[in-house]
Amino acid sequence: MDLSLPRGMRDLKPEEYEALERVRATFIEVARVFGFRLMEPSPIEMLQTLEAKSGAGIRDEVYHFKDKGGRDVGLRFDLTVGLTRYVISNRGLPLPIKIGAFSGMWRYDEPQYGRYRWFYQWDAEIFGTKSIDADAEIVDFTSTLLDKLGLKEASIEIGDRRIIEEFIRSRLGISDENKILTLLRAVDKLERKNVDEVLEEYAGKGVDREALSRLTEFGSLKGKPERVLDSLVNEGLQQIEDMTRLVDALKARRVPNVTLNMGIVRGLDYYTGIVFEVFENEKRNLGALAGGGRYDILPEIFGRSDMGATGVAGGVERTILALSKREETGVESKRVFIGYVGEDMAGVAAEITSNLRRRGLPVDIEVSGRTLRKQLEYASKSASLFVIVGPRDYAERKVTLRDMESGAESKIPLEELEARLRSSL
Amino acid sequence: MDLSLPRGMRDLKPEEYEALERVRATFIEVARVFGFRLMEPSPIEMLQTLEAKSGAGIRDEVYHFKDKGGRDVGLRFDLTVGLTRYVISNRGLPLPIKIGAFSGMWRYDEPQYGRYRWFYQWDAEIFGTKSIDADAEIVDFTSTLLDKLGLKEASIEIGDRRIIEEFIRSRLGISDENKILTLLRAVDKLERKNVDEVLEEYAGKGVDREALSRLTEFGSLKGKPERVLDSLVNEGLQQIEDMTRLVDALKARRVPNVTLNMGIVRGLDYYTGIVFEVFENEKRNLGALAGGGRYDILPEIFGRSDMGATGVAGGVERTILALSKREETGVESKRVFIGYVGEDMAGVAAEITSNLRRRGLPVDIEVSGRTLRKQLEYASKSASLFVIVGPRDYAERKVTLRDMESGAESKIPLEELEARLRSSL
Repeated sequence: MDLSLPRGMRDLKPEEYEALERVRATFIEVARVFGFRLMEPSPIEMLQTLEAKSGAGIRDEVYHFKDKGGRDVGLRFDLTVGLTRYVISNRGLPLPIKIGAFSGMWRYDEPQYGRYRWFYQWDAEIFGTKSIDADAEIVDFTSTLLDKLGLKEASIEIGDRRIIEEFIRSRLGISDENKILTLLRAVDKLERKNVDEVLEEYAGKGVDREALSRLTEFGSLKGKPERVLDSLVNEGLQQIEDMTRLVDALKARRVPNVTLNMGIVRGLDYYTGIVFEVFENEKRNLGALAGGGRYDILPEIFGRSDMGATGVAGGVERTILALSKREETGVESKRVFIGYVGEDMAGVAAEITSNLRRRGLPVDIEVSGRTLRKQLEYASKSASLFVIVGPRDYAERKVTLRDMESGAESKIPLEELEARLRSSL
Repeated sequence: MDLSLPRGMRDLKPEEYEALERVRATFIEVARVFGFRLMEPSPIEMLQTLEAKSGAGIRDEVYHFKDKGGRDVGLRFDLTVGLTRYVISNRGLPLPIKIGAFSGMWRYDEPQYGRYRWFYQWDAEIFGTKSIDADAEIVDFTSTLLDKLGLKEASIEIGDRRIIEEFIRSRLGISDENKILTLLRAVDKLERKNVDEVLEEYAGKGVDREALSRLTEFGSLKGKPERVLDSLVNEGLQQIEDMTRLVDALKARRVPNVTLNMGIVRGLDYYTGIVFEVFENEKRNLGALAGGGRYDILPEIFGRSDMGATGVAGGVERTILALSKREETGVESKRVFIGYVGEDMAGVAAEITSNLRRRGLPVDIEVSGRTLRKQLEYASKSASLFVIVGPRDYAERKVTLRDMESGAESKIPLEELEARLRSSL
């Protein structure tokens, strides 16, 4: 029968899943050290909850349907909405709360190479404070996680929409909200297009070319925090208090690889303060590996304008791509296969296997009663060591150990098998 | 706004999620030792794939809908279907293959106390052999996993539908397929009802009371493998070859807590040979924690009648319930909170925090700029140790360490802080 998957779906194959579990384990460990508690919000939400963040337009991008009770429900498209809903609907939680998740989600995007309609993110959020110290904690967490994952070349690029808005209002003299939004969208393009392309794209949109040109120049301001802060001061901008305090806090925490980038503008109807994105410098065309910022507006929409929220989310698949660039191929762990000659030896082979497994050694065993030749052929694909349990050896309490690469064989007393395997693995 | 979840949905709260992650980590470790590779099959399948196992009747129990492309799709209701589809559609895989998964799934059941429409299972399968050695490997895996989880009192109860069928045919002289199915369904009730209740329920269904009575008596046959096998031999039954070989193989592997139970009859249109269920003896009313068996019929439906399949799946939520019975409450890990007096000390506190975290110590820090009194009040809910960074102490390169339980405080030189925290945690 036709066993194809719905368009945009895929399996996480063993090698992909192993990489995912390595990222998950690292995330869990860093969350523990930083004091983020982990949870998993419901994968199915009422559609209206999913729409709260971005409006009904999100319907085009989410899997939604009527459940058998006639309710409009949808699959989560991120973890932030669910985490925010959880914190806001559980009034007894002590605030501020540091909470995170690592799970799959669904988006009905047009599938592209390496992009699926089901994917994983890690997510860490702090609810219950508007202090910039919480933003510093989020950036520090992000930096530590990247480091522990092995992405030593990743850089965290921080912007602040309020600073660009101030530049537009005070330096370019523009106060029309729509014009400001158009200009901000143009700045947002700078990561993917060069200044000339952006100028050309927006020239026809009733945007003053001179203003756009000055703004894109400002949006290109990027570099070491102190240097960028100096430039902002020289521009006479006032809205740099949070940025200055964030830079100080990150310095106290010795967070490396932080860059200020005035071109970082994310989710204009969503983020309200500091925003940041993470790029792998050697593979910037992968896009941002993670992004975050302050989004006090979501708790406000959910009815808690006092709460405040800041956080970060990262794409697991993209992170794995960035890692595989650096590590080259994943190292297949060496394995042991226990085979046997003749049906009478099956029980002995099983007993030897069980003993080794109880001692924590990863051991495979023949489970389909094939001939030794077939066992060897099969094991050659997965095992580096092959133990042959045969009646003659066994009469002397020995087994034959075969190195699958060289083909070399040696007879080993049973009581020495564990030590020999350990020294060879 | 209304933030309620769809009926039957819930969040996995931090304490539940932590328990889930403990089960996941144990599962991953045992899978590694046994040589099962892990993956995650697609969460969304074509509806026809989901129906292959149980027919269109499954529609009532699955979340299904038309996607935006008009395709009938559904959320997975187990992991076995996806794993089987994966193995069968990837012809290049070396067989036999040992493969498993640990993930969430959805069923549109009527929600009950402690039962949700979204839940987790672990799953381990062997495809590509019909040998009983593979069934032994699955039972051994199950037993080892239960042991590593800490469920030392769990017992694995093994049955074989073919043996009961032979009893019905040869000893009760019934050969009508429908009658046989009705009788098997009656036996399946014996775990939840006593013999008299089952007799009463089925008396009106055109089933011979004498036959049913003898069958339920046979279905009550349960105990140590050798004793039950002897009884089967005494009954003159022939279909006991697989069971005998399985018992021998499990003995060679020293698998403890195995019972034969002729009343174990699972998924009558699905399982084809050995079947088993796992019960926690002190909490049998939780129902089976796991169940499995041989289901050669599913690969057959998917077009590979030669392949063979045997496996096991366990309910993570139920396992956690069984564990919490034994462990009583989960032990909250002790935590450290770094607070400070006065805004000037925020940077110093952040630096101390970062240093401790880099050394792997789980440390929380004040991130909302509150007064020391408020910090202490907040930390009392989560931390056992509180470090106060204050200007006077800091001038002497010291901090104050407060035991949150006793209230005792002592001044500690900064360079001794890590060692003091380690010895107290």
